[in-house]
Amino acid sequence: MSGTSSFSMKLKVGIVGFGPFAQFLAKTMIKQGHTLTATSRSDHSEICSQLGIKFFKDIVPFLDSNNDVILISTSILSLSQVLSSIPFHVLKKPTLFVDVLSVKEYPRQLLLQVLPEEADLLCTHPMFGPVNGKDGWAGLAFMYERVRIRNEDTCSSFLHIFQNEGCRMVEISCEEHDKQAARSQFLTHTIGRMLSEMDITSTSVNTKGFETLIHLKDDIVKNSFDLYSGLFVHNRFAKQELNNLEIALETIKEKLLDKVTE
Amino acid sequence: MSGTSSFSMKLKVGIVGFGPFAQFLAKTMIKQGHTLTATSRSDHSEICSQLGIKFFKDIVPFLDSNNDVILISTSILSLSQVLSSIPFHVLKKPTLFVDVLSVKEYPRQLLLQVLPEEADLLCTHPMFGPVNGKDGWAGLAFMYERVRIRNEDTCSSFLHIFQNEGCRMVEISCEEHDKQAARSQFLTHTIGRMLSEMDITSTSVNTKGFETLIHLKDDIVKNSFDLYSGLFVHNRFAKQELNNLEIALETIKEKLLDKVTE
Ligand SMILES: NC(=O)c1ccc[n+]([C@@H]2O[C@H](COP(=O)([O-])OP(=O)(O)OC[C@H]3O[C@@H](n4cnc5c(N)ncnc54)[C@H](OP(=O)(O)O)[C@@H]3O)[C@@H](O)[C@H]2O)c1
Ligand SMILES: NC(=O)c1ccc[n+]([C@@H]2O[C@H](COP(=O)([O-])OP(=O)(O)OC[C@H]3O[C@@H](n4cnc5c(N)ncnc54)[C@H](OP(=O)(O)O)[C@@H]3O)[C@@H](O)[C@H]2O)c1
Repeated sequence: MSGTSSFSMKLKVGIVGFGPFAQFLAKTMIKQGHTLTATSRSDHSEICSQLGIKFFKDIVPFLDSNNDVILISTSILSLSQVLSSIPFHVLKKPTLFVDVLSVKEYPRQLLLQVLPEEADLLCTHPMFGPVNGKDGWAGLAFMYERVRIRNEDTCSSFLHIFQNEGCRMVEISCEEHDKQAARSQFLTHTIGRMLSEMDITSTSVNTKGFETLIHLKDDIVKNSFDLYSGLFVHNRFAKQELNNLEIALETIKEKLLDKVTE
Repeated sequence: MSGTSSFSMKLKVGIVGFGPFAQFLAKTMIKQGHTLTATSRSDHSEICSQLGIKFFKDIVPFLDSNNDVILISTSILSLSQVLSSIPFHVLKKPTLFVDVLSVKEYPRQLLLQVLPEEADLLCTHPMFGPVNGKDGWAGLAFMYERVRIRNEDTCSSFLHIFQNEGCRMVEISCEEHDKQAARSQFLTHTIGRMLSEMDITSTSVNTKGFETLIHLKDDIVKNSFDLYSGLFVHNRFAKQELNNLEIALETIKEKLLDKVTE
């Protein structure tokens, strides 16, 4: 049975890490009729009660509340710490764990280490967020790897959340994701951060291309610096791409300086 | 009388340097009813005859043909050589010289040196071209400095070419243009060239931001490398901005490496 099967039921989804991205996903899941609970380092009980989500300060009653899916949406940098604080033995039934971290080999490996053998694992990366997904998810990429799936109905139902919204479903390995994301997403964030570091602002002689870059920069810096650092620290392909970017700049510089002396 | 006065007459415009940008401008000038002639290093007589433009292989009959305006649209790097080959004494009447080079202090200074005292000079930079101006010029910036204008009617009529199309008319000094363009246009071209140097291509997990960068790169590399080099070699503010970009990349890199060791 494939991950994009047609089976779809309403799920009980427990979210670990209720930051900006989890809040963004939660709204669509609720709209679709799923039942949500959440736990997080900080107290998000107010926003949760507005959304109709039960918020747990303590992890034990959260785990005890019979979720079909536990969705991990903490920052990349805090994943290891967050996982080590979860008493998995409290779980009452085999549960599907899903992570949405923007790097993939790292959570795949960590989760396979700490999850109970009976838990299923789906590693995913919705390639959008509150900024570029604010007008709907249609056509936006949703990447996933079915790492360890035995309960096909639950997995299929979870994937349906994104299929229903019109996402482009991309089933690739975590390794392939990280390779490609280092050359695309990480690069994009790095350019946004460089422009922000340079404090670029609108001029009276803006070209269209420059305006595109200003918007890009403004969008990128809405993401936490933790998210950006995570793209680098826990994607083993990112360092090479950062080097490639440096080399590209040096090459361009040399070509320009050659023209000066010509 | 201001440069954006309402006076407007049909002009005889002679173009020096009939490359991609001149061809692009020519179409709109012809549409507006102006009469065009052209001369260039290469033989552009075929495209000229298609457009209804008289093409001169030799500069002397070109200068002799009684133009109201002579529009300089050669590459930045060749300007000095092109100007030195023009026998200005052949001109039969005081003429308005206009340049459209993407840097401004440099042609301003060179033209003031070589033009006959009775010639007027308008330095301009339409901040768009065949790629981003293909769907019309409305809202796009047109920068100009009235360097030496005595014949207001001719100058006003020339500026009207761009006003009529809905350009945002920006009257600023060549110096101020170069400062701002180094921080905007030159930076944009540099990022496009870096991405091209890295050979970035679409991935299966593209984010919207990354797609924006691919389009930007594709658009930038449609410009000649001569144009890009000119933005650097003959804009005295560009070097500092290139350094700023390098420093920004180094700063970002250090911040990322700090996170690795944290
Ligand atoms: N934003 C996007 O567009 C996007 C898109 C796709 C995937 N993602 C992924 O989704 C996840 C969440 O992203 P985000 O945008 O919400 O911002 P983020 O800064 O990456 O993560 C914020 C979340 O991490 C938690 N957290 C941070 N440090 C922690 C610590 N030391 N201990 C425990 N929890 C900690 C926060 O908890 P508290 O709120 O309780 O403090 C919050 O829930 C990340 O893994 C990110 O890569 C984000
Ligand atoms: N493209 C744009 O979007 C844009 C926008 C605003 C301003 N501009 C400015 O417009 C001017 C023309 O730009 P472009 O896009 O057409 O491309 P370009 O590569 O900057 O310039 C091409 C023009 O320069 C001439 N040229 C190059 N080397 C020469 C030499 N050694 N001797 C004599 N002529 C030489 C070419 O003549 P032949 O064709 O006869 O070989 C052609 O007319 C440049 O100054 C540029 O900065 C361009």
